[in-house]
Amino acid sequence: MTLDIASLVQPSPGKIVLVVLDGLAGFAGPDRGTELEEAHTPNLDALATAGSVGLHDPVGAGITPGSGPAHMALFGYDPVEFQLGRGALSAAGLEVTVEPGDVAARGNLATLDAEGRITDRRAGRLPDDEAVEVVRRLRDGIAIAGVDVTIAHEAQHRVLIVFRGEGLSPLLADTDPQKVGVPPAAPLATLPVADHTAEVVAEFDRQARAVLADHPRANVVLLRGFDSHRQLPSMYERYGVRSAAIAVYPMYRGVANLVGMDVLPRPANLDEELALLRKYWDDYDYFFFHHKPTDSAGEDGNFDAKVAAIEALDAAIPEIAALGPDALVVTGDHSTPSQMAAHSWHPVPVLMWGPRVGRDDQTRFGERWCVHGALGRRPGQQLMSLALAAAGRLAKFGA
Amino acid sequence: MTLDIASLVQPSPGKIVLVVLDGLAGFAGPDRGTELEEAHTPNLDALATAGSVGLHDPVGAGITPGSGPAHMALFGYDPVEFQLGRGALSAAGLEVTVEPGDVAARGNLATLDAEGRITDRRAGRLPDDEAVEVVRRLRDGIAIAGVDVTIAHEAQHRVLIVFRGEGLSPLLADTDPQKVGVPPAAPLATLPVADHTAEVVAEFDRQARAVLADHPRANVVLLRGFDSHRQLPSMYERYGVRSAAIAVYPMYRGVANLVGMDVLPRPANLDEELALLRKYWDDYDYFFFHHKPTDSAGEDGNFDAKVAAIEALDAAIPEIAALGPDALVVTGDHSTPSQMAAHSWHPVPVLMWGPRVGRDDQTRFGERWCVHGALGRRPGQQLMSLALAAAGRLAKFGA
Repeated sequence: MTLDIASLVQPSPGKIVLVVLDGLAGFAGPDRGTELEEAHTPNLDALATAGSVGLHDPVGAGITPGSGPAHMALFGYDPVEFQLGRGALSAAGLEVTVEPGDVAARGNLATLDAEGRITDRRAGRLPDDEAVEVVRRLRDGIAIAGVDVTIAHEAQHRVLIVFRGEGLSPLLADTDPQKVGVPPAAPLATLPVADHTAEVVAEFDRQARAVLADHPRANVVLLRGFDSHRQLPSMYERYGVRSAAIAVYPMYRGVANLVGMDVLPRPANLDEELALLRKYWDDYDYFFFHHKPTDSAGEDGNFDAKVAAIEALDAAIPEIAALGPDALVVTGDHSTPSQMAAHSWHPVPVLMWGPRVGRDDQTRFGERWCVHGALGRRPGQQLMSLALAAAGRLAKFGA
Repeated sequence: MTLDIASLVQPSPGKIVLVVLDGLAGFAGPDRGTELEEAHTPNLDALATAGSVGLHDPVGAGITPGSGPAHMALFGYDPVEFQLGRGALSAAGLEVTVEPGDVAARGNLATLDAEGRITDRRAGRLPDDEAVEVVRRLRDGIAIAGVDVTIAHEAQHRVLIVFRGEGLSPLLADTDPQKVGVPPAAPLATLPVADHTAEVVAEFDRQARAVLADHPRANVVLLRGFDSHRQLPSMYERYGVRSAAIAVYPMYRGVANLVGMDVLPRPANLDEELALLRKYWDDYDYFFFHHKPTDSAGEDGNFDAKVAAIEALDAAIPEIAALGPDALVVTGDHSTPSQMAAHSWHPVPVLMWGPRVGRDDQTRFGERWCVHGALGRRPGQQLMSLALAAAGRLAKFGA
């Protein structure tokens, strides 16, 4: 049996900072180490020397996590128990409210050929200004009896659709087949309760195609990740911490919002993220500090850019450490090896530092050293327990 | 919560080879290392250098597994959830069909003294030709009203008995007391539903003793592992892989058959196993490649013979690696330390190699190096997930 740490939470002034280098981890090839091993990271290495390192598996052995479950695990939520659809994540990130009974879906503006086959699932990664115009045309042109449709632009070709009306259900298969050369899938209910919703989505699709028929690239909306309103237990309810999120990108702001964090005003870059951390230091017990460029570089297959993104974060470490957190956790949400240009299942390095964390015999921060660190190798979800403990926020179990 | 990886399976051309050195692991004594540590294994060491190593616990801490659960774990099946009786395993290995309603049991031809006490549980490890003659006499001499009895010879003193008739149940305790100096146990139903079956088995025992009364060594059949028909989800159903088993010994062919593998024509030795792997390489996604001599030597308490058996498999590694699997997993199903001349609970070294496996800082394959490898120490069942991931066969979890 697993003990629910919520039952042990006690008041404490201890502060926690979770620094997430998105997609941090990689794997070593024949001729060189991982991005983190090759990066010059004197500040992270100093913390590794003074603290402890290890590895975590975000969801489980061999499992490649999406950003949602990977972050849920880092926040201490069981990522299998608390599954979030892309729609819910996107909505939260865009601060679009999904009410009980609503159905949200992630949409891609995409290109169909004359025969109705998908030729580009991202409409040539439509620039934001063109995409905003397409979204405006959709908003003006679509009307479905008995259903309110909210259409929001996220970034490039990515949009969010929220359907609101009586008797809707998210139990629908994706219309996005996730490949080209085939037509979009017809809206399909996975259980009969969603048959009406499938008809609503089919009508949305007909009208969207009509509205966009003359657009050279964005002439269809592919939908995936149908989801409904979620009410998750908040970080405060679970851990008694007043928590704040510092993140540039909507999706990470969204997942933080879903677990009840205060999402601080949107920063433009790492410097502005640091300024926010300083400014709000006294107001919160827990800070989620998100660094995206590591993942973006990994997704681009750009080893050197990922190294540079790691080194940029390294330069910010002294300022974070100087605030004196009781637990500073530096890790990734998942692996994005530049060899794969995609998320992967490889384990993720983690570093903990603080007055009660303890020091192991490792002096570098990187996969090959983390294998030998005192934190061992563990499910990502356990890091929250360790951080709470180091911040004095977990009482003794048993007499 | 544990995520069922079957929900993530996606098509991929990636190939997996699982090489099982049966009973591979051991433990180091005061004066020398384990059999694997002492063996000269340049080819395995080269893979360990290029790939990653670790340890697995087949079933759990301190648990000594039989061959059935140990292999089930390696195939990714929960060995506690999917328990197989020795009877079902033997039947599958002998390609004897166990229908729904049948009861199968493993039998030992054994020796009783004049007072009916067991003096040898294996009848002097009766040679195959003598045992076949004993089985023929049993077949000719035994007739039980309303019950068909199938008697098959497995190897040496080992036989398989399958009872077919109305109202049979496998809920019987073993008649084999697993020690000498005592009489066989009377057939005993563990629940009343098997009372009739206990009578059938008692009648079988009376007739078998009568038929074999004048045999100098094999004058009784000891029964254990009563079991019924099993329908297990297949490897294809669970993982979407077309799988093939390459194994010399019936029991391993049997367990592979129970999980739906194609069991390739029976090879006589390691060279013929390699030839099968080459011949069928294009026809399957997953190969289970079984090497028995390590376990046999360990069971005999023969350290040097076990070292030699490991070195023989090492010599086959370049040919296997040259086929270019996406995930080559080399491990044991359990420990058989020659100091114990028996299976044991000690953890089992594992090596993974392939283009997306990643490289750790270990350069040898052996228990003492595997402790420090990047695969860490984990339940044996997780190896299948890692292999599927490395072969590109698991989709991302969550958005």
